[in-house]
Amino acid sequence: MPYRAPINDFRFIFENVSEFSQVQATDRFADATPDMVEAILEGAGRICEDVLAPLRRAGDLQPARLENGVVRTSDGFKEAFAQLAEGGWIALSAGQEHGGMGLPIAITTVFNEMAASTAMSLGLCPLLTQGQVEALEHHASDEIKATYLPKLIGGEWTGTMNLTEPQAGSDVGALKTKAEPRDDGTYAISGQKIYITFGDHDLTENVCHLVLARLPDAPAGTKGISLFMVPKFIPDAEGKPGVANNLKVVSLEHKMGIHGSPTAVMQYDGATGWLVGEENKGMAAMFTMMNNARLAVGAQGVGCAEGAYQHALAYATDRQQMGRIVDHADVRRMLLTMKADTFAARAIAVNCAVAIDMETATHDPDWKARAALLTPIAKAFATDVGCDVASIGIQVHGGMGYVEETGAAQFLRDARITPIYEGTNGIQAMDLVGRKMMDGGEAAFRLLDEIQAHAESVRNDLAEPVWQASETLREAVEWLVAEGDMRARFAGSVPFLRAFARVLGGHYHLRAALAEQGEGARTKLARFYIARLLPEHAALLTHAMSGADDLFALSEDELAA
Amino acid sequence: MPYRAPINDFRFIFENVSEFSQVQATDRFADATPDMVEAILEGAGRICEDVLAPLRRAGDLQPARLENGVVRTSDGFKEAFAQLAEGGWIALSAGQEHGGMGLPIAITTVFNEMAASTAMSLGLCPLLTQGQVEALEHHASDEIKATYLPKLIGGEWTGTMNLTEPQAGSDVGALKTKAEPRDDGTYAISGQKIYITFGDHDLTENVCHLVLARLPDAPAGTKGISLFMVPKFIPDAEGKPGVANNLKVVSLEHKMGIHGSPTAVMQYDGATGWLVGEENKGMAAMFTMMNNARLAVGAQGVGCAEGAYQHALAYATDRQQMGRIVDHADVRRMLLTMKADTFAARAIAVNCAVAIDMETATHDPDWKARAALLTPIAKAFATDVGCDVASIGIQVHGGMGYVEETGAAQFLRDARITPIYEGTNGIQAMDLVGRKMMDGGEAAFRLLDEIQAHAESVRNDLAEPVWQASETLREAVEWLVAEGDMRARFAGSVPFLRAFARVLGGHYHLRAALAEQGEGARTKLARFYIARLLPEHAALLTHAMSGADDLFALSEDELAA
Repeated sequence: MPYRAPINDFRFIFENVSEFSQVQATDRFADATPDMVEAILEGAGRICEDVLAPLRRAGDLQPARLENGVVRTSDGFKEAFAQLAEGGWIALSAGQEHGGMGLPIAITTVFNEMAASTAMSLGLCPLLTQGQVEALEHHASDEIKATYLPKLIGGEWTGTMNLTEPQAGSDVGALKTKAEPRDDGTYAISGQKIYITFGDHDLTENVCHLVLARLPDAPAGTKGISLFMVPKFIPDAEGKPGVANNLKVVSLEHKMGIHGSPTAVMQYDGATGWLVGEENKGMAAMFTMMNNARLAVGAQGVGCAEGAYQHALAYATDRQQMGRIVDHADVRRMLLTMKADTFAARAIAVNCAVAIDMETATHDPDWKARAALLTPIAKAFATDVGCDVASIGIQVHGGMGYVEETGAAQFLRDARITPIYEGTNGIQAMDLVGRKMMDGGEAAFRLLDEIQAHAESVRNDLAEPVWQASETLREAVEWLVAEGDMRARFAGSVPFLRAFARVLGGHYHLRAALAEQGEGARTKLARFYIARLLPEHAALLTHAMSGADDLFALSEDELAA
Repeated sequence: MPYRAPINDFRFIFENVSEFSQVQATDRFADATPDMVEAILEGAGRICEDVLAPLRRAGDLQPARLENGVVRTSDGFKEAFAQLAEGGWIALSAGQEHGGMGLPIAITTVFNEMAASTAMSLGLCPLLTQGQVEALEHHASDEIKATYLPKLIGGEWTGTMNLTEPQAGSDVGALKTKAEPRDDGTYAISGQKIYITFGDHDLTENVCHLVLARLPDAPAGTKGISLFMVPKFIPDAEGKPGVANNLKVVSLEHKMGIHGSPTAVMQYDGATGWLVGEENKGMAAMFTMMNNARLAVGAQGVGCAEGAYQHALAYATDRQQMGRIVDHADVRRMLLTMKADTFAARAIAVNCAVAIDMETATHDPDWKARAALLTPIAKAFATDVGCDVASIGIQVHGGMGYVEETGAAQFLRDARITPIYEGTNGIQAMDLVGRKMMDGGEAAFRLLDEIQAHAESVRNDLAEPVWQASETLREAVEWLVAEGDMRARFAGSVPFLRAFARVLGGHYHLRAALAEQGEGARTKLARFYIARLLPEHAALLTHAMSGADDLFALSEDELAA
């Protein structure tokens, strides 16, 4: 099953369903001219189609393995990573001062999507490296930047992020890894970290770990966490990998999917680390990396959905059962659901990226608030869509979908991690109804104003339900910001986030419909989405405003009865 | 993670949320006294807890394998199957004239649920055997009955069903396997069948295949299909396995889950078969088997949900992240969704079984119509719930849910087959809005009358939304039966089925709430379901009545663009 990069859809969303042209009009991103963007999209599409797509199966059937303390990756990964590095695809948005192209995050986002459609396991390595690059750009000393950034951006070394410990997952503040200051200004890092993606591998000559740890006498919780650069091999005077650091891979996890991506348990035994940013300010630096990564994981969700859709469509047009199954109404319903939700998720992800780019370029607090608002929605909704669409893809295949050789099941097994990592979707929803509503709902109301003003300017049968849904959502935001009991907010946070995404999807589908002449394919798809998928928002918002009392009415014994 | 059989819930549903007492009052099921039922439930729970539950992981980690043409099953399967056979658990509802216990299907249904919660892969072997027993009881000659039924019921031999061929899945009528009559009254069966569950194994000394095939000059399509018994070893004069038949396992599928269940490609090369039922009437006989199996698969869905729930609850009460995670509102929301939907699906499955039992016992056409209406709903809704709840279970576990060692992911991988086999859920939904509405909606309206009369008799805040939802569903049924274009019905059939199940779930939760004194656990759970899950029906019914035009508005090129 060949993959075809959805370049047309990216181009269309950039031009018609986002403010990407405003990004291009800024000084910061002046290099991202239409010709440049076109060339990048074409090149990215080509490398994903030609180099990554053929590795999808290998990344499933040949899991990364630990041999004598060293991780070996699936056949073809090393060569493909080298091609990504050579083409400059590792960190497209990295700054030009250290060898990056300084492109908008919007471009990186669609690249990440395509990588997830094709070789998601391998794609995780550049994805984590992107996050590390951004964290170093914002927080590291000039010396660390000079040593690490060119290597990371050029794909000579790769980056990881080390947050989680067995007792510290969503509760990052519970971490115990220690950092003891040494006389030479370095720190001795000791502790165990779990779920370290590409914690070791054979793709490059060095692996750079950003590790969260505690200084002696640091305050408890998240206020006592510092960030350290802990390389596998310590760079020598010439900046080349030198002495091996005191760290090792203890084991690799056996996972439901993304088998090609080594998920390591890492052990640090007095490993040498360098402070990144200030002491006890590690969480801020880590958030830089995680914010970037949250959108990137959302893009992975879109990528899983797109891959699963292309796969299912090809099967449905080929498979004969009382005529071709693509001509059966229920199969059409499934395919259109897949396509309409993939578009909605993609549009949300790109609009989130555009807001981040505008924030970067203009430092406008409104764009900053927009980016902050959209990030948890993009992450959670797009990853849920990735799983849902992948599961529908299995269903389109019937019995063949359950047989691994078809490749349909892999999309679901791979996608299923995305609602979990980089902050579970429950954590994203708590962020949305908590931190992101600390402005009294201002950013949300401003977005709803735009959506409703747009719908009013259209005044057709498609616009009316979008306007109405926005109004219902506005009432829910009002309820939220008036609700002082955070537990009551949290109780409905997941359905609230999904309802918000449903409305955004309606808005972007409407904009897509208006951008084409007459009743074309995008209008037809918008009609489907608005008639059949958007109505879900009402029940979700009823759920969102139900408070928390009934959730805690059952005792623990009653839960177990 | 030990499994605890939900005997209390079965007992409660039998006594308060179904007409099981009416089943017990019939002559046919007079032996199923309260004491007898209690003893069976206890015994079934014990064997599932003690014998099957420990095999869950082995059935995943040690897939069935084909060695020199013979299938070897996972460690422990043979011994456990022998215990099931010895205890009489293989075919609880089989008639007493051939050694069965003649118990209601309602009892078999809860047994099948528990087997799916514990060792779903192994449980498929008795499940398929149950279906074969029922088909033979209804359609086979006395000679075949005498030869096969005691062996099947006693667990000395097992049964399979052979429908699917590479070109004939949902379109059974496209099958090509040939049956040539021989002079001795037997038939020579030749052809290839796929997806044959437990097509071979090492659990028993013989495997009995019921094979659909075509006689020479048979009419095209489903009207030219006949059913044959084709044993692996041909019974000798004493009824013992004799000469090997001309059939073999070509290969086993590599599947997403249920690894312990061998899914075989079977090759028949002039194998000796005996006609079951009349020539060209094989589909009717097969439907007997499939109807039984549809409810059994629904029960598997409930079992996956129950297992995943128990697993997630144990983790949530143990895991500490900013306090125990069971005390976080969003985790509560997930757990209550799992519990409330598991109850709804279980109540629907048991009520479907009760209708089948009442039909068997009374031959009342109203019970027959009720059973026919509920069967596709029980199959599709319960299996969707199985997948959804298993996926939520992964989410409750966070990162640990994606690591296979936890066992949470296996519930989803195993459950994911259930919306596909025994007729995809799309086929179930087409059955519901097509064949099951050929009575002009009479059976559906009668059920809605009962639900609304019950809600009216209650007149409290829980009853009102159930009444209203039933009214909306009634309008949808009216729309359906008035809609002459079958494609328009089919276009909304899946959301219609789910909405119907949502309303049924509301009704059963309401009955459960009323059966307890005061505001107990069941009332609290009903409150959660009715406030948060039931509202989904409205958007589903909007979807259901949207017609088919928009589904076919996009051209194939536009789908692929």
